Amino acid sequence: MEKMQKKIAILGSTGSIGTQALDVIGRHPERFRVVGLAAGRRVAELLEQVRRFGPEWVSCADPADAAALREVLPATTRVFSGAEGLHAVAVAAEPDVLLAATDGAVAFDAVFAAVERGRRIAVANKELIVAAGELFVAAAKKSGAEIVPVDSEHSALFQCLVGEPPERIASLIVTASGGPFWEMPAAAMRDASVADALHHPTWNMGVKNTVDSASMMNKGLEVIEASRLFGVPAERIQVLVHRTSVAHGFVVFTDGNVKGQLAHPDMRLPIGYALAYPDRLPDHQSVDAFTALGAAVDAERARLDFLRPDFERFPCLGLAYEALRRGGTVPAALSAANEIAVDAFVRGEIRFGDIAAVVSRALAGTPDEPLSLQTVRSADRRARDLAREAVEASSPAPANR
Amino acid sequence: MEKMQKKIAILGSTGSIGTQALDVIGRHPERFRVVGLAAGRRVAELLEQVRRFGPEWVSCADPADAAALREVLPATTRVFSGAEGLHAVAVAAEPDVLLAATDGAVAFDAVFAAVERGRRIAVANKELIVAAGELFVAAAKKSGAEIVPVDSEHSALFQCLVGEPPERIASLIVTASGGPFWEMPAAAMRDASVADALHHPTWNMGVKNTVDSASMMNKGLEVIEASRLFGVPAERIQVLVHRTSVAHGFVVFTDGNVKGQLAHPDMRLPIGYALAYPDRLPDHQSVDAFTALGAAVDAERARLDFLRPDFERFPCLGLAYEALRRGGTVPAALSAANEIAVDAFVRGEIRFGDIAAVVSRALAGTPDEPLSLQTVRSADRRARDLAREAVEASSPAPANR
Repeated sequence: MEKMQKKIAILGSTGSIGTQALDVIGRHPERFRVVGLAAGRRVAELLEQVRRFGPEWVSCADPADAAALREVLPATTRVFSGAEGLHAVAVAAEPDVLLAATDGAVAFDAVFAAVERGRRIAVANKELIVAAGELFVAAAKKSGAEIVPVDSEHSALFQCLVGEPPERIASLIVTASGGPFWEMPAAAMRDASVADALHHPTWNMGVKNTVDSASMMNKGLEVIEASRLFGVPAERIQVLVHRTSVAHGFVVFTDGNVKGQLAHPDMRLPIGYALAYPDRLPDHQSVDAFTALGAAVDAERARLDFLRPDFERFPCLGLAYEALRRGGTVPAALSAANEIAVDAFVRGEIRFGDIAAVVSRALAGTPDEPLSLQTVRSADRRARDLAREAVEASSPAPANR
Repeated sequence: MEKMQKKIAILGSTGSIGTQALDVIGRHPERFRVVGLAAGRRVAELLEQVRRFGPEWVSCADPADAAALREVLPATTRVFSGAEGLHAVAVAAEPDVLLAATDGAVAFDAVFAAVERGRRIAVANKELIVAAGELFVAAAKKSGAEIVPVDSEHSALFQCLVGEPPERIASLIVTASGGPFWEMPAAAMRDASVADALHHPTWNMGVKNTVDSASMMNKGLEVIEASRLFGVPAERIQVLVHRTSVAHGFVVFTDGNVKGQLAHPDMRLPIGYALAYPDRLPDHQSVDAFTALGAAVDAERARLDFLRPDFERFPCLGLAYEALRRGGTVPAALSAANEIAVDAFVRGEIRFGDIAAVVSRALAGTPDEPLSLQTVRSADRRARDLAREAVEASSPAPANR
């Protein structure tokens, strides 16, 4: 399929998605060539990546770090920093595929610049799609840029939609693991600790994502992303809880046929797909059917179970649907307020059960307004302020951490 | 998607697939126009279809029936019979899609003529693919004709492969209901009656298919079809028993991703897909996720179960794999010998448990020879003779019918 090496640039190369992408790329040197890497402050890791993959364009957050990198790298490596660096890696490096894998809004401008130039974007930057998805998709439509999602649920839906007429989507189903609190009674959930959410009392890099999984806000945000990426309204996107995380998404078509995607929960699969698309990587030659369907109950039986989500115990799910229905900058406000609420929970300032209340207060204070890159930023700031006020107004959490 | 009506011709219009196709077409007069209908001996039904759908080209088996039809139909309707009639409907009617839905080999020549002219073929003629699949697919490749399967399992695989690189198929999974004898012990199966196989003691139209389902030979034949249609060898096609018949097929790709198709067991869905392809029909506006996944255990849980098939209790499955591995005319011999064996079982001449033995004897007497439209016919005849000899050599079945 691929006659030549595909040129890849990565924004967020030292993060979880970035490092796994480089793992995939390293196994396929004949197919991929790294032309640009942008990281934040993990400069030692970045240096190691640059030495291994030899990109011409490199960027980090801090100008002083960039200067230090220039000292040790050959003169042919162009090292930048900050917004200029992100832009250089996204645009000047001229990648065939830009993997947008930074968190938050830091790379919005660089990604939009690449989209406007018609580059294919493998997108793992959730905030970009939640907060600015409509703008992002509209810009891609205008320039002809292709957007390939990296998140496993959206990759599933994308894979099911390859070659299909998009106007024939009846509904989308995204699956949810249900997170660590799926079996917990509502009363216990209210005062659940950070340790409960993390399953072990270590504050690690994944704390935000793990709390979002416990509240199922992660799934609510994914519903918003699915709506933006595939142009399907809230009422035609459903969440099903699927504890074994083998099936990631289903598309129900208007003719009554349903397509679904399954894969072992390994982010390198959707990452590899997004990099290789429209081809697929030739990694495995054959897979046993039971292995493929996962979740073998025993040697003779495989089973896939799906449960309806519980909107009462997981009110964040309903808040996300509300934000999606309201549209405009409300999804951006949801995402921003949730960050503040999760942070406050992790600091012991509010109960787990207060996260939804804090987000809800922020949404109540968010006006309905048209979406633009300007209003998104102001809505984000306003939602954070509203959420902080709501945190301060909450009764203190019990000191059970 | 479709700017104009699509012209449809049907070989086998009064059969089960043909009538269901006309049901689909009748619900979408804006999309489909019937240009040709060919039936066998059910002339009254054919006449009714012609009056309703107004095709210009019509055919039946018998010249006398054709003459009678000419009497009552307007002069603008061209009525033919026999092989000439099948050819007229398949070719002269110039359909955009030819639905090949006759049983057996009667329409082989007409379908091949349409394939050679590059027509899209919606194929429901199992014997065509089992016995002559390699020739059929090669002819389509040469002329650029598209083959869209109608059988639900192959439609599932085809749908999963739309837009995908075919060389990235790692393996195919076809599901099987397991049939009426799935739970029956081996000893009881040996002497199972026709009534057991049919679940009720009525000899009806579906007797051959029902016995094939009981022996799982139907699934063996489908494995052969899948191999022919998608170019995947026997060792990379697996059968999984899925009692609820909601999931019909899965494609495992070389990159570790799996796509599957689900649909309620209603033949009008794959028929409608094959007629509308590459579009899909806009029948439903939205489907509840639980309804879409089917097999709801209760209001809160849907479940898909998959079991390994039992090659010991269902030796026909192994015989089909053997025929596929040997290739050439052996699949044609398998299909022909199975027809004789099932017929003998239904007549009470052999036990249910003898079906596999009869087929096995016929395969043992079939030489390995290259496939052509000539060798297929001679292999078919020889296999029927060998199977009849094996039937006669069997001990008589107990008179339990």
